[in-house]
Amino acid sequence: MSLELASRLFAEIDRLVLIDPHTHINPHAPASTTLADILGYHYYTELAHSSGLAKSQIEEPGLDPKTKVGRLVEQLDRLGNTIQVDWLVRLCQHFFSFADDRLTVDNWEALYDTAAKKMAQPTWEDEVLRKSGLEKIFLTNDFDDPLEGFDSTRYIPCLRTDDLVFHLAKPATRERLAKATGVDVRGPETLKSAVGKLFSHFVEKGARACAISLPPWFSPDRVAADEVSSAFSRLLAGASLTAHESGQISRFVFWTLAEHCAETGLPFDLMIGVNRQVYRDGVYQGQDLFDQRVSLIQYQELFNAFPKVTFPISVLAQSSNMELVSYAWIFPNVVTNGHWWYSNIPAYIEIDCRARLQAVPANKQIGYYSDMYKLEFGWPKFRMYKQVLAKVLADDFVIGRGWSEDRALELARQTLRGNVETIFNMG
Amino acid sequence: MSLELASRLFAEIDRLVLIDPHTHINPHAPASTTLADILGYHYYTELAHSSGLAKSQIEEPGLDPKTKVGRLVEQLDRLGNTIQVDWLVRLCQHFFSFADDRLTVDNWEALYDTAAKKMAQPTWEDEVLRKSGLEKIFLTNDFDDPLEGFDSTRYIPCLRTDDLVFHLAKPATRERLAKATGVDVRGPETLKSAVGKLFSHFVEKGARACAISLPPWFSPDRVAADEVSSAFSRLLAGASLTAHESGQISRFVFWTLAEHCAETGLPFDLMIGVNRQVYRDGVYQGQDLFDQRVSLIQYQELFNAFPKVTFPISVLAQSSNMELVSYAWIFPNVVTNGHWWYSNIPAYIEIDCRARLQAVPANKQIGYYSDMYKLEFGWPKFRMYKQVLAKVLADDFVIGRGWSEDRALELARQTLRGNVETIFNMG
Amino acid sequence: MSLELASRLFAEIDRLVLIDPHTHINPHAPASTTLADILGYHYYTELAHSSGLAKSQIEEPGLDPKTKVGRLVEQLDRLGNTIQVDWLVRLCQHFFSFADDRLTVDNWEALYDTAAKKMAQPTWEDEVLRKSGLEKIFLTNDFDDPLEGFDSTRYIPCLRTDDLVFHLAKPATRERLAKATGVDVRGPETLKSAVGKLFSHFVEKGARACAISLPPWFSPDRVAADEVSSAFSRLLAGASLTAHESGQISRFVFWTLAEHCAETGLPFDLMIGVNRQVYRDGVYQGQDLFDQRVSLIQYQELFNAFPKVTFPISVLAQSSNMELVSYAWIFPNVVTNGHWWYSNIPAYIEIDCRARLQAVPANKQIGYYSDMYKLEFGWPKFRMYKQVLAKVLADDFVIGRGWSEDRALELARQTLRGNVETIFNMG
Repeated sequence: MSLELASRLFAEIDRLVLIDPHTHINPHAPASTTLADILGYHYYTELAHSSGLAKSQIEEPGLDPKTKVGRLVEQLDRLGNTIQVDWLVRLCQHFFSFADDRLTVDNWEALYDTAAKKMAQPTWEDEVLRKSGLEKIFLTNDFDDPLEGFDSTRYIPCLRTDDLVFHLAKPATRERLAKATGVDVRGPETLKSAVGKLFSHFVEKGARACAISLPPWFSPDRVAADEVSSAFSRLLAGASLTAHESGQISRFVFWTLAEHCAETGLPFDLMIGVNRQVYRDGVYQGQDLFDQRVSLIQYQELFNAFPKVTFPISVLAQSSNMELVSYAWIFPNVVTNGHWWYSNIPAYIEIDCRARLQAVPANKQIGYYSDMYKLEFGWPKFRMYKQVLAKVLADDFVIGRGWSEDRALELARQTLRGNVETIFNMG
Repeated sequence: MSLELASRLFAEIDRLVLIDPHTHINPHAPASTTLADILGYHYYTELAHSSGLAKSQIEEPGLDPKTKVGRLVEQLDRLGNTIQVDWLVRLCQHFFSFADDRLTVDNWEALYDTAAKKMAQPTWEDEVLRKSGLEKIFLTNDFDDPLEGFDSTRYIPCLRTDDLVFHLAKPATRERLAKATGVDVRGPETLKSAVGKLFSHFVEKGARACAISLPPWFSPDRVAADEVSSAFSRLLAGASLTAHESGQISRFVFWTLAEHCAETGLPFDLMIGVNRQVYRDGVYQGQDLFDQRVSLIQYQELFNAFPKVTFPISVLAQSSNMELVSYAWIFPNVVTNGHWWYSNIPAYIEIDCRARLQAVPANKQIGYYSDMYKLEFGWPKFRMYKQVLAKVLADDFVIGRGWSEDRALELARQTLRGNVETIFNMG
Repeated sequence: MSLELASRLFAEIDRLVLIDPHTHINPHAPASTTLADILGYHYYTELAHSSGLAKSQIEEPGLDPKTKVGRLVEQLDRLGNTIQVDWLVRLCQHFFSFADDRLTVDNWEALYDTAAKKMAQPTWEDEVLRKSGLEKIFLTNDFDDPLEGFDSTRYIPCLRTDDLVFHLAKPATRERLAKATGVDVRGPETLKSAVGKLFSHFVEKGARACAISLPPWFSPDRVAADEVSSAFSRLLAGASLTAHESGQISRFVFWTLAEHCAETGLPFDLMIGVNRQVYRDGVYQGQDLFDQRVSLIQYQELFNAFPKVTFPISVLAQSSNMELVSYAWIFPNVVTNGHWWYSNIPAYIEIDCRARLQAVPANKQIGYYSDMYKLEFGWPKFRMYKQVLAKVLADDFVIGRGWSEDRALELARQTLRGNVETIFNMG
């Protein structure tokens, strides 16, 4: 009974047309052109490598797409249990009429060719979106992205700021900043003015969020301009900064971003908890991990200082979800945002989703985002989430609390679609 | 089948008459007088604020009860998903014959009036207790509470000690202590003697526990009187203490409390993990949060030093529950105590309850306490817990291990009622 | 339906003949001789003590086995809820035709005598293994174990190294090392050479793993021989080492072990997170606990430095499992290994098992080990795991993903049996 109920709820949830509030889509090439774009997603390359395939086999210079796919497919029998390979098989069934339930050395070539043909059609991008129930897609744009040459009503710009906060000491970052803004950063004040130009540009181009990913050790306290001026001088002189100095710079830049979010009304997406390049010989994008010893208490000054800035927050460690639930329950400006990366598997989504639906105000939850690099992944990833959501609504709300199915679906609509519109001012 | 079984177990569990081993009831005004007492519970004010209602709307000076309720009710459509609003609606149905399943701008006024009438009846307090299946209620008393003017066989005193441990530097705390005990604290020895007077007074008045809530960074190591005497002198001189000094004072007072628990046989309830006033502009009682980076290893010296003191322990972070289970499994004097605050939602209760029932001796588990401020909340909160408990007993014990329903109910009785009597010496 | 499906999967999984990849079996006395060997397992003595039985009653010098059992049985009514007592009752039913579902003061003596008779039969060891579906058992051998006098095709040696890493400062450890290797450790180089001899001896005797348990604060960074030579000199001179010095020694010895694993191809089992002797007056083996504030980020240098060493990893805190899943997903040399100690209860196994099956390559998961001291415990412990596994396969794979039952069973076979053979080179 519970299974049938969940299926019924899923079917209704699946009819919603959604906005995907965080992706890495390239709006100039949003869809895949061969199966190598699909199997080249870091989930497959890193899992293939983890299960035994040499990095050199995957990242061989000049490797043609078809050979690459062939090598990765050979590894899939070791990965068929993973939810990521489940996404893969289902998307092949959904988009390419793939009839098997495993991708093997015997059946991949035919699929490769079928997919290539489909993807070559000029309507492919539209078809994927339509078949995925997605109508708008948030991007992740470098701060110096000109934001031109694409339909910004479909692909919503979002200002990504990791480089500014953590890599300002690199001359290349400052050069890009100077080029993008016309401001030559000479100290804290010019940095603020350059950041102001970035925000103006992004807002003008329709950006709906500022975003950043943060390491577990980061604590964004307020740093005044005069506290950081000597560190800035040393940075500009190319000196090697102490950990304290580079921390001061990072906190100053971060705080400046938050001030501009307050000014422009952009929500500030915080993705908390990633350590970069932990596995140094890992494949591209398959090197990052985390340290679960992180707390949102590190953000208390920020949340207090910017009551008017909305902070949609993603946490990498599942053990951080309870803090996220509690902070969103107390702070008006803290919003729960999707299920990120290593937490984005059904076992953890279920626990996290249940707690959020039981304790965070309904208007402060963004159910899900795909985090995808290619459009074809929106459908299987959202599908995974919707299945968990349908189960939680069935068990906890319809059966557990005696809600009508309509009321449960109203909650699903709000967290999956309505809140994305209100929180990111899409109206 | 599992659902029917769980319902059957719930019905039996729900017939038990219980003792509520931790509340904030004021024995001089235990029940509510209007719906404003109900909706004024911090869960509703903080969630309403979190979801968008200005603090000034909630805490406006001179605000009359009915207007306050009206303002909060307007916010409830954003909060209907929360388990806290589920408590609210169910208690209105249970106690006030409320017939709807949502409290709205259209139906609240009639309910307000009905409730006010009910609450005005002189038998209201007794009726609530009877309809809640509760016969005794533990209090949380300030150390200088005279403990007079109420029935202490129904309302059990409990010595709350946060002020002594963490706020002794405030002159007001010391004045209250002097007034309550007749002892003027001049140093470690007089502090001990004042604490001794408090314990005598509380024990004489029927107290059954000493209790305290503790921040995540606290480590209660033993501090000898002579180690702390200079810090005490500076405290008494009104000097501004270093973090080390105030830590020494806190540890010394805490250790003194434990010594008196050992002497008097009072269990020492530890509620571990709260950071106070994290959200500085939050509503009353809606400002506290936590840092999950806490460990019971911080308490190892305490548990070793006081083998004869029973420590019923509540943890705020759900991730602390596994340590609590393990410490209660190993230390004879560590007892699991209820599901506290941010952990008190079904999603977390279920995980925590399962682990405790599988690994902690049956005689060392206190199933639940309501933590309520007004009597009307005992019923819906215990009901929530009993439903989770019935589900866990059904799935893990009756179905999973082949237990008879009677045996499962015996376990429920022990953890919900029997252990409260034995652990707090209610015999 | 889900329950029937899970039962069907369990029945099939239960037919597998397995290798137990981590135990504390003494190959010279692998099976029990009386029920005192069974009830003397630390789970029962520590739980009995925790629930109220004095340590002196359990560890009284000269206590005869039957009296000891009688005293422990009296405590079992307080422990019947625990999964550990469930193991006990089931193994008595399985091996000794025990017909009741509780072990009580009224029925234990008959059982004691029946069991003693069974255990006295010369075929007992073989019968237990046969009735348990186990054919090979990994041992935990002290580094100076001669590894002689037992069938090392049935009982697989494993080099346990805690003493070398954490207790080299004790003269007794160095004496044992000198005696076992013929090498007198005079500094870093001779230590390396002694370790080399140990590995040669163990490999020659058929060892298939090196193993160690590690405290939560340990971070195994590389320490060069010249960095540690002065600390070594002071250690050999019997000086009292600073925390820094003893940390340097531990890290140097640990790194040396990893180097020899690389050389010999032995996997290095890491059991991460235990604090020893937290409860100082606890019963034998019932004193250790943990601090959940640990991260696998502490091991990043190790995992990067030894890409050819396989690290099967067990974590003590359940909150560490998500890191383990993520690190095994990214690092080719990190493998998930069983469910350890305080995490080895169904409530935690279920959460952890689900996440592993959803996100870790199938070839990198070792489903379970018993950790047993006496053979009789293999059956009930594996049974507990298999039941959880069957449930997860039923819910998440057969129902949730539409897998055939055969495919689900294939995954069970691989994680329970196949991977033990490939990871520990049993071919």
